[in-house]
Amino acid sequence: MTTDDNAPGARMAAEIAEQPGLLAGIINERQEITDIAAEITVEPPRFVLLAARGSSDHAAMYAKYLIEVLLELPVGLVSPSVTTLYEAQVNLHGVLLVTVSQSGASPDLLRVTETARERGARTLALTNTPGSPLTEASELTVLIRAGEERAVAATKSYTCTLLALYLLVDAMRGGDARHVREIAATAEDTLSRCGGTVEHLVDRYRFVDRVVTTARGYSYPSASEAALKLSETSYLAVRAYSGADLLHGPVATIDPETAVLSLASEGNGARAMHQVLDTVATRGADILAIGSGASEVPANNRIHLDRTAEEVAPLLEILPVQRLALDLAIARGEDPDQPRGLAKITKTL
Amino acid sequence: MTTDDNAPGARMAAEIAEQPGLLAGIINERQEITDIAAEITVEPPRFVLLAARGSSDHAAMYAKYLIEVLLELPVGLVSPSVTTLYEAQVNLHGVLLVTVSQSGASPDLLRVTETARERGARTLALTNTPGSPLTEASELTVLIRAGEERAVAATKSYTCTLLALYLLVDAMRGGDARHVREIAATAEDTLSRCGGTVEHLVDRYRFVDRVVTTARGYSYPSASEAALKLSETSYLAVRAYSGADLLHGPVATIDPETAVLSLASEGNGARAMHQVLDTVATRGADILAIGSGASEVPANNRIHLDRTAEEVAPLLEILPVQRLALDLAIARGEDPDQPRGLAKITKTL
Repeated sequence: MTTDDNAPGARMAAEIAEQPGLLAGIINERQEITDIAAEITVEPPRFVLLAARGSSDHAAMYAKYLIEVLLELPVGLVSPSVTTLYEAQVNLHGVLLVTVSQSGASPDLLRVTETARERGARTLALTNTPGSPLTEASELTVLIRAGEERAVAATKSYTCTLLALYLLVDAMRGGDARHVREIAATAEDTLSRCGGTVEHLVDRYRFVDRVVTTARGYSYPSASEAALKLSETSYLAVRAYSGADLLHGPVATIDPETAVLSLASEGNGARAMHQVLDTVATRGADILAIGSGASEVPANNRIHLDRTAEEVAPLLEILPVQRLALDLAIARGEDPDQPRGLAKITKTL
Repeated sequence: MTTDDNAPGARMAAEIAEQPGLLAGIINERQEITDIAAEITVEPPRFVLLAARGSSDHAAMYAKYLIEVLLELPVGLVSPSVTTLYEAQVNLHGVLLVTVSQSGASPDLLRVTETARERGARTLALTNTPGSPLTEASELTVLIRAGEERAVAATKSYTCTLLALYLLVDAMRGGDARHVREIAATAEDTLSRCGGTVEHLVDRYRFVDRVVTTARGYSYPSASEAALKLSETSYLAVRAYSGADLLHGPVATIDPETAVLSLASEGNGARAMHQVLDTVATRGADILAIGSGASEVPANNRIHLDRTAEEVAPLLEILPVQRLALDLAIARGEDPDQPRGLAKITKTL
């Protein structure tokens, strides 16, 4: 790590390295999340709606799997345009609206929250910014405690959001956070061990053009976040697909010029990826598998992660991808802290 | 059109041309959809879940906008893996599950339907295949009446599904189908007028590598379907983004080497696209705008469509894209009827 805060990628590098410490802090302070969970479960929602943009939208996708599988509640992802463009007045009695926003300042999420509250929803904001407009508009707030994020590409705010969402859902089902007790140490270990492989991959991807990320189940949000990270820092044209959707058409584009990045952690998601990995291998694609699963992939095409409960693996899977996005951008002469055309807060309606 | 059924793209060409006639047939037979709508509204759902894969998933996204905006009911898109991989037992009393499947034979949608029904949901299948397993598993069925589809790339089944979904939602709110009465004639006109521009575009895109499709609101599903059509026939690496999501990161990848295909029909969606089109134009992208909106784009970068109600524009917007996917594939020496690595029915769990 450099001590020059303005060196290319210095902020992103520092924020990636902060993650284990921040995750440990969130675990220590988890009582405040448990308290919010208790407030919600006094009158359990019949249905959950999630609203977010960018990296936070991938965190929301992770929450969708957690809530459906662990809480067995139906979940929908909000298209903000339904409110902001078409002004639909959806009946939301008995619904919990969860907005996820690092900045807490997106005008579209603010409008969605205000409208949902008027229409009977309970509203919960997950944000990194105490006192932000979104916390003012929402009845309940969970702070994600990632500290100020200065790099444009979200890294620490993403993993801290995933952990906050996991702790919230786990507390709502009466869990004791047992699967994440060691997550900070495992994250530290993952970051320190992936360096050599990432260095090798930066070479391998120096001239890559076509990249596809893919996963199933809990890891699918990791595939979407990986695509965004590589797009916004290295300007690669990366497409993200669920493994099932990939086989329903886009697989026709996979050829020996395509790098396929598979996220697969041991469990049901990884088992469902066998068919996908077999198919893309037959088509001659270059494969990289990240996670504790996909043991059929040759070792030098894998970044092997320690096994965890499948539902917490997304907190770890993204770490080597963040390092890859950072180092690849620098190797290509870009500054991942200042991607062309992007600002830290994007305002859309 | 060729008379040789085995010439490259002959089936896809024939099925594209069949669409106006099929749409007219669906309008004529709409009473059966009105009857299903009446059955549903006897006991209106408190919430709708949609499940689909591939092109049908884009039709389901269209239905999500229709149901949220026109019926003001909350909607969720099902991740089949929650049922098929994790076996979650979500409480679905008061929920209407709508599955959309051309073949009616997807094992994952079948499992989702069976499980949802056990858990209290009402189940409705939209399918092109009478007597298919999905119709057997569902309480209610709407046939989309597209006739047998032989090309691997879905064209007529997609537009027929959109129309069936529109008629269903319109009937559920007591509408009289007024916005689609002339849709067959408008579709005929759209197809006959777009030929010259498509011919020109086939030349322009002969060596394109980076393609991004984008739209907002009702047209967003058209952007996703356009990406799939161009991917599966011409093997282009096409990424689809909502205009808002594009500005939240992937816009950094847009450069003068990128072809941006914008779908924008007059109304709220097109108005929200101004900011997006301005931004990608500043970044030097090549722009093509399809639809009745986006009048700020120079005329030779547009395929202008007749104005319709915004919510029915997606039935028309996709038609020039289908022709472009067909003709571009043929120009590149591919057979769009037989994309490499694809079968008509994809079986995933």
